[in-house]
Amino acid sequence: MTQYVYTFGGDAVSDDPRAKDKTITGGKGANLAEMASIGLPVPPGFTITTEMCVKYLAEGANFDDALRAEVASALGHIEQTVGKKFGDPADPLLVSVRSGARVSMPGMMDTVLNLGLNDDTVQGLSTVSGDERFAWDSYRRFIQMYSDVVLGLDHGLFEEALEIAKEDKGYYNDVELTAEDWKALVAEFKAIAARELGHPFPQDPSEQLWGAIEAVFASWDSDRAKVYRRLNDIPGGWGTAVNVQAMVFGNMGDTSATGVAFTRDPATGERAYYGEYLINAQGEDVVAGIRTPQYLTKAARDAAGAQAPSMEEAMPDAYGQLARVFDLLENHYRDMQDIEFTVQQGTLWMLQTRSGKRTAKAALKMAVDMVGEGLIDEATAISRIDPMALDQLLHPTLDPEADRKVLTVGLPASPGAASGKVVFDADTAETWAERGEAVILVRVETSPEDIHGMHAAKGILTARGGMTSHAAVVARGMGRPCVSGASALSIDRKSKVGRIGGTEIKEGDVLTLDGSTGEVMLGAVPTIEPELVGDFATLMEWADAKRRMKVRTNAETPADCKMARQFGAEGIGLCRTEHMFFDAGRISSVRQMILAEDKKGRETALAKLLPEQRSDFKAIFTEMAGLPVTIRLLDPPLHEFLPQGDAEFEELAEITGYGIDHLRRRADELHEFNPMLGHRGCRLGITFPEIYEMQAQAIFEAAIEVAVESGEAPVPEIMIPLVATKRELEILKALVDKIAGEVFDAKGKTLEYLVGTMIELPRAALMAGEIAEEGAFFSFGTNDLTQTTLGVSRDDAARFLNPYVEQGIYPRDPFVSLDIEGVGQLVELGAERGRATRPDIKLGICGEHGGDPASIAFCEKVGLDYVSASPYRVPIARLAAAQAALKA
Amino acid sequence: MTQYVYTFGGDAVSDDPRAKDKTITGGKGANLAEMASIGLPVPPGFTITTEMCVKYLAEGANFDDALRAEVASALGHIEQTVGKKFGDPADPLLVSVRSGARVSMPGMMDTVLNLGLNDDTVQGLSTVSGDERFAWDSYRRFIQMYSDVVLGLDHGLFEEALEIAKEDKGYYNDVELTAEDWKALVAEFKAIAARELGHPFPQDPSEQLWGAIEAVFASWDSDRAKVYRRLNDIPGGWGTAVNVQAMVFGNMGDTSATGVAFTRDPATGERAYYGEYLINAQGEDVVAGIRTPQYLTKAARDAAGAQAPSMEEAMPDAYGQLARVFDLLENHYRDMQDIEFTVQQGTLWMLQTRSGKRTAKAALKMAVDMVGEGLIDEATAISRIDPMALDQLLHPTLDPEADRKVLTVGLPASPGAASGKVVFDADTAETWAERGEAVILVRVETSPEDIHGMHAAKGILTARGGMTSHAAVVARGMGRPCVSGASALSIDRKSKVGRIGGTEIKEGDVLTLDGSTGEVMLGAVPTIEPELVGDFATLMEWADAKRRMKVRTNAETPADCKMARQFGAEGIGLCRTEHMFFDAGRISSVRQMILAEDKKGRETALAKLLPEQRSDFKAIFTEMAGLPVTIRLLDPPLHEFLPQGDAEFEELAEITGYGIDHLRRRADELHEFNPMLGHRGCRLGITFPEIYEMQAQAIFEAAIEVAVESGEAPVPEIMIPLVATKRELEILKALVDKIAGEVFDAKGKTLEYLVGTMIELPRAALMAGEIAEEGAFFSFGTNDLTQTTLGVSRDDAARFLNPYVEQGIYPRDPFVSLDIEGVGQLVELGAERGRATRPDIKLGICGEHGGDPASIAFCEKVGLDYVSASPYRVPIARLAAAQAALKA
Repeated sequence: MTQYVYTFGGDAVSDDPRAKDKTITGGKGANLAEMASIGLPVPPGFTITTEMCVKYLAEGANFDDALRAEVASALGHIEQTVGKKFGDPADPLLVSVRSGARVSMPGMMDTVLNLGLNDDTVQGLSTVSGDERFAWDSYRRFIQMYSDVVLGLDHGLFEEALEIAKEDKGYYNDVELTAEDWKALVAEFKAIAARELGHPFPQDPSEQLWGAIEAVFASWDSDRAKVYRRLNDIPGGWGTAVNVQAMVFGNMGDTSATGVAFTRDPATGERAYYGEYLINAQGEDVVAGIRTPQYLTKAARDAAGAQAPSMEEAMPDAYGQLARVFDLLENHYRDMQDIEFTVQQGTLWMLQTRSGKRTAKAALKMAVDMVGEGLIDEATAISRIDPMALDQLLHPTLDPEADRKVLTVGLPASPGAASGKVVFDADTAETWAERGEAVILVRVETSPEDIHGMHAAKGILTARGGMTSHAAVVARGMGRPCVSGASALSIDRKSKVGRIGGTEIKEGDVLTLDGSTGEVMLGAVPTIEPELVGDFATLMEWADAKRRMKVRTNAETPADCKMARQFGAEGIGLCRTEHMFFDAGRISSVRQMILAEDKKGRETALAKLLPEQRSDFKAIFTEMAGLPVTIRLLDPPLHEFLPQGDAEFEELAEITGYGIDHLRRRADELHEFNPMLGHRGCRLGITFPEIYEMQAQAIFEAAIEVAVESGEAPVPEIMIPLVATKRELEILKALVDKIAGEVFDAKGKTLEYLVGTMIELPRAALMAGEIAEEGAFFSFGTNDLTQTTLGVSRDDAARFLNPYVEQGIYPRDPFVSLDIEGVGQLVELGAERGRATRPDIKLGICGEHGGDPASIAFCEKVGLDYVSASPYRVPIARLAAAQAALKA
Repeated sequence: MTQYVYTFGGDAVSDDPRAKDKTITGGKGANLAEMASIGLPVPPGFTITTEMCVKYLAEGANFDDALRAEVASALGHIEQTVGKKFGDPADPLLVSVRSGARVSMPGMMDTVLNLGLNDDTVQGLSTVSGDERFAWDSYRRFIQMYSDVVLGLDHGLFEEALEIAKEDKGYYNDVELTAEDWKALVAEFKAIAARELGHPFPQDPSEQLWGAIEAVFASWDSDRAKVYRRLNDIPGGWGTAVNVQAMVFGNMGDTSATGVAFTRDPATGERAYYGEYLINAQGEDVVAGIRTPQYLTKAARDAAGAQAPSMEEAMPDAYGQLARVFDLLENHYRDMQDIEFTVQQGTLWMLQTRSGKRTAKAALKMAVDMVGEGLIDEATAISRIDPMALDQLLHPTLDPEADRKVLTVGLPASPGAASGKVVFDADTAETWAERGEAVILVRVETSPEDIHGMHAAKGILTARGGMTSHAAVVARGMGRPCVSGASALSIDRKSKVGRIGGTEIKEGDVLTLDGSTGEVMLGAVPTIEPELVGDFATLMEWADAKRRMKVRTNAETPADCKMARQFGAEGIGLCRTEHMFFDAGRISSVRQMILAEDKKGRETALAKLLPEQRSDFKAIFTEMAGLPVTIRLLDPPLHEFLPQGDAEFEELAEITGYGIDHLRRRADELHEFNPMLGHRGCRLGITFPEIYEMQAQAIFEAAIEVAVESGEAPVPEIMIPLVATKRELEILKALVDKIAGEVFDAKGKTLEYLVGTMIELPRAALMAGEIAEEGAFFSFGTNDLTQTTLGVSRDDAARFLNPYVEQGIYPRDPFVSLDIEGVGQLVELGAERGRATRPDIKLGICGEHGGDPASIAFCEKVGLDYVSASPYRVPIARLAAAQAALKA
């Protein structure tokens, strides 16, 4: 027969591994049993398992005799251990009842304390404690809590009654109420409960207990709990355990106390006890903030210059017990612990322990320190760090001490902080930056035309667009802080004035952006520079040793390449060539090419672009010497390159000699309803082969020059975008091979290179087996693959994606974290079919997901060879890849 | 050992079924063997199998001794049968060599006649035939043909020499050349060949033969043949056979003749011999059109009022032989045959027979007649008709006798013909139509706002957009003739003037459109009405008895519903509710709803739309009494409903009381970069549930009213569009169920209904197993599924889809015929996973592909329950579904 109840504390000993198994006794219950078993002072108690919860939810509240017998026996264990009887009017045992699921989960039933009190037992508590006020205060607290969390009554009714009572007496604070006052209030509370319930407040301790047990179970299916589970992907079938534990009191006078503590400093990671306590108080008082808690250690009190004595000074014995517990716990759990304790009349009792939350910096320091201390091994250290938390360490951050005047909060689109003078267009950004000014580029939204301005700027602020808008993606790629979608911002481009709420922002005014929080601040706020040495470097070295997948970067400028190499990138996974086309010096040649009426016209314009592209690639190959470089041939719709305003049309008319009407007509002809699904990617290469021919020529000529000059030949991996059929790749691979042959003949040198494709359309994933006949590598372009698989335009998703995530339709923004169950199927299938055709095919991912830990774990599972992330995400990807490899 | 050579004719008898197997001996060879085996007069010959071709292509021209022995023996069979020897200078055997693949395939080697002639044998031929001119003419023809098709020399060289010779002699026509002239020309032809080849023209008949055999094999891999195969999806591994046959001569005087014939009239299907012949001529002369061919029968000659005697009159014996052959062939092949024959000195020889091409009308008549004659059964009759050919019969067609002035040719976007007065906007179309005018709506392109004008118009002409543009899809749905993408057309909307080439077209001018050919004609061209009775009705009845899948229609007006029922629709597969929103009387309420700032504002506007929607549905339910009706809730992006020009903004400002600036700002806010992937479909239902609530209420109220009034309850199938996750369907199904409950309570009646979804996103297909937990039916929306799977926007595809089809990247426009290997995988997977979860799930297809026979065959294979097509495609779908079922 399944055992549903496990005891802990006192002389309870169980070899049953289920007792300490979180899936059976929940996180809290398992840790209490664990602490008790290693000899720590835990008030005796018992846990009813999560399995019983599941049974209850399926079958209802028909607790059978077997369970009742188990509970009775477990209650007997508590009674025996503390020497009190449950419901004994002379000296009653009181218990707490708490929920406790496998993982910490808000939304379920909170604590009920002092259970077991009634009109009789309160007398016994009064007598035994010798403190009548304490007894009645405890009783009224119990009625209030139980009515709220178990009986579901409106807690406002009780608070109101308390307030009226205080007003009547002219009291300001609860502590002013006397034992008699509490007695009167207990009577009133009972009357309220009886009125609301239609029957008296339960007096029978056993009825109280079973009511609380049932309330815990039922709370698993509360609306709040369900929402939380959906958002956090917690299965509804887990259920929660119930923990029933003998009460201990931190409010039994000056030898009693209660506190919370961390075994190390959770902010810095320093190896120093860290925490707060209050004398003569119950747990809730520490959190409630009515009294100011005191420091745990003398050192901390000194450092803070506080008056109230530390626990080390005020209760040296109890503190000594606590310090020993700290060490025991760290040795046992091999991690920093977050603890709740109570001292009852000089005796320390442990109420909870769990792994403590910490800052990124502290996490790093503790992980590295603990390896040094021999507590954990390197693999454990690696798995302890949340890769995303590294983000905090990679960018300059605002000095937390500095004053800031926050004007509005947009989306934290690209982390880091930056201050600079506001400009409203990309050209001004560039001009001002060239003369040494720090500028913030402020736009309604950015377009590929703004790239040079974004590069020039220290930070980018947009009024529209989401976390994956053009501004956000490009900014993350460049490592520029960015706040996007700041909807309170409006811009009048003509007069070069912005407005956020009541504040007018003129060109040249100084703003500060915090891309990690989305805050937009007036004036300059001082920043702190990141440090990538010490613990950081040590941990990354360990991670690199453990990971299987390579980590590349998405980069297209020498500066980005340099930075990415510093961050540890092992090649380029995605070099987008279109950004090179937007350079101010080239855009008119590009436009000339697009607007040409025939192939000859296009070739003339392309001839002007060739030397420029060659020098781009040369710079990149030089920077990435010895590493693979994946270059994607031109991808976006041609109309993106077209002139936008009157001035640009006029300028172009002058250069090309075409009339403005002619140019406008051509631009209209190139307009597309859904450019994302339009004439772009390899469709350009098929219809205008001369464009790809020029790019291939530039790549091979540059590669050969670098090979000759440096003696180290780069291996260009030429990537054909937006392929949906084998035939497209066949045609364009033949084109690239032809150009390669021509260049090799002309230069009298050959070079190794690969031709492959992006898998970014569902059809490409489905047909990967055939496509692999032509392609030497696949790079999963999960940005576009997500757009097409889900049918969601990234640029238009803001209007519905937030409500979607809120309603649990997608657990997370699928452009931030890969939709594994949907898009993931296509990635897996594409990888499998590609490998079936070509076992040594090189597989990578170059969407934004290449920098997302959950997505990276998936890539490891599918067996990709590398992930490619924007430069600032490279360290995150290295760590995430190591964790994924360790898990596999 | 594999037999590579099969003989036919004479006393050749073979029980080997491979001899008459098209996959072994090719279409031509198998039919020759077949004809010979049933006793028809076939000149003796042999076929080298396709397998030898495959071997040749793999191993090269190393013909082994075994093959040479087989060929020698087969040649012996011919020699023995005709009593002549190959290469005999006294009385030479001459042969023809032809290619012949499994299916007729242009691009391969053409015929070589008179092979075996050389400087010696030409003398023998001269003597034996008693016609020196005939012999030398035959020799020069052979050199010319062999040099061209076997030796690959430029045939222009020979033609030039012939022209010069004629000029020198002052001849106008070939027939004027004498035997001496031909002799001289043969000398010159040989000189040309020797000069071009670098060696003499081959004199050895055996060398000639093997050269021709090799040329046939090699021609299988010619560029032209490869392109044809790719476009027609013919495997490259099939290979071609070679047919070598004794020559017979129709040009041996007035008792010789040559002709082509059909066993029935291929234009009308009448059971009457039909064909042409020429006395004293070779096959090529009939086709070349130098002489006017004569009729076969006296009846045909009389009917045409021709002078030249018919074969029936001129050669009664040979005609008698031919008539017997016709009957034998029809009885044997049980189909109308297309025949080539030669009469050599009074004796009839059959050179070819094959199933004959025919018009749609003839195909129908022949199929039905042959069932009546007991020649074929109903299943065979059904399989004989190309479903797409029915299209010709379903629409009014232009009188082929009438004069027409074609201005330009656009795309044949929706079949049928229409004449009417030109209007350039939808409102004018409606106004003019209301006063009884036939109008042609002429637009650059259409948008959903034009729907009322398209309905009012007799035909639609657009300057832009492809076969699946908005105009094309909607026009096909409505059964309106449409010519789209007429790029020669330009329109000046302001002055209401169009221009096609040099012709100016003013509002009110009359145009005629032929939507089946794409022709645009000036003035009215008379039309002929279709007849859907007689043979058509008979065949459709047979088809309905054979098919498994139901055929529904895509319709949203009572008129369309009525027409679709006449065409045999068995329900509605897709009723798009958005078209109802564009009605002039409602659009302002719709706009008010969209522009409302909050839910309350939207609900006020929706309350106005409710009675309108209810009456729409009532009319449809009434029309479709007793049949299922699938209604798709609102799908398109809201901004499609927004005002476009100044006038519309002003009008709306007046109605709503909002300022124009406010309205423009709201319209801007609703702008989307890729509306196809934007805020549409169920995303509207999730973010603005009140819209779907109104629609559900209208549906249930209408259904109950119709049930009460007619006593026959409709079964609404409510379809949630653009679902990608189970959760979306879960939320919206709950919404529909809630409204159903409310309406049922209010009316005191209940009703059966289903809630299901469109599978139109790759993710939906992938997650179909989960989604089926919520959905009672799936309708595969293959239009959008194709767009997302291929990453191609239908509206933008014109610029690259044509080059794509030309280069064989897609075999056909994937919006016209389902991309079975790509998109088909998702349909199959979606169907499988859906059925795994819910075995009785109802599965259908409602994309444009529901009317395409190849796609319908796929739907049968996957096991869908129904296809849904636009009304005019319903008969096509019925026939195609029957054919698919018969094949399965």
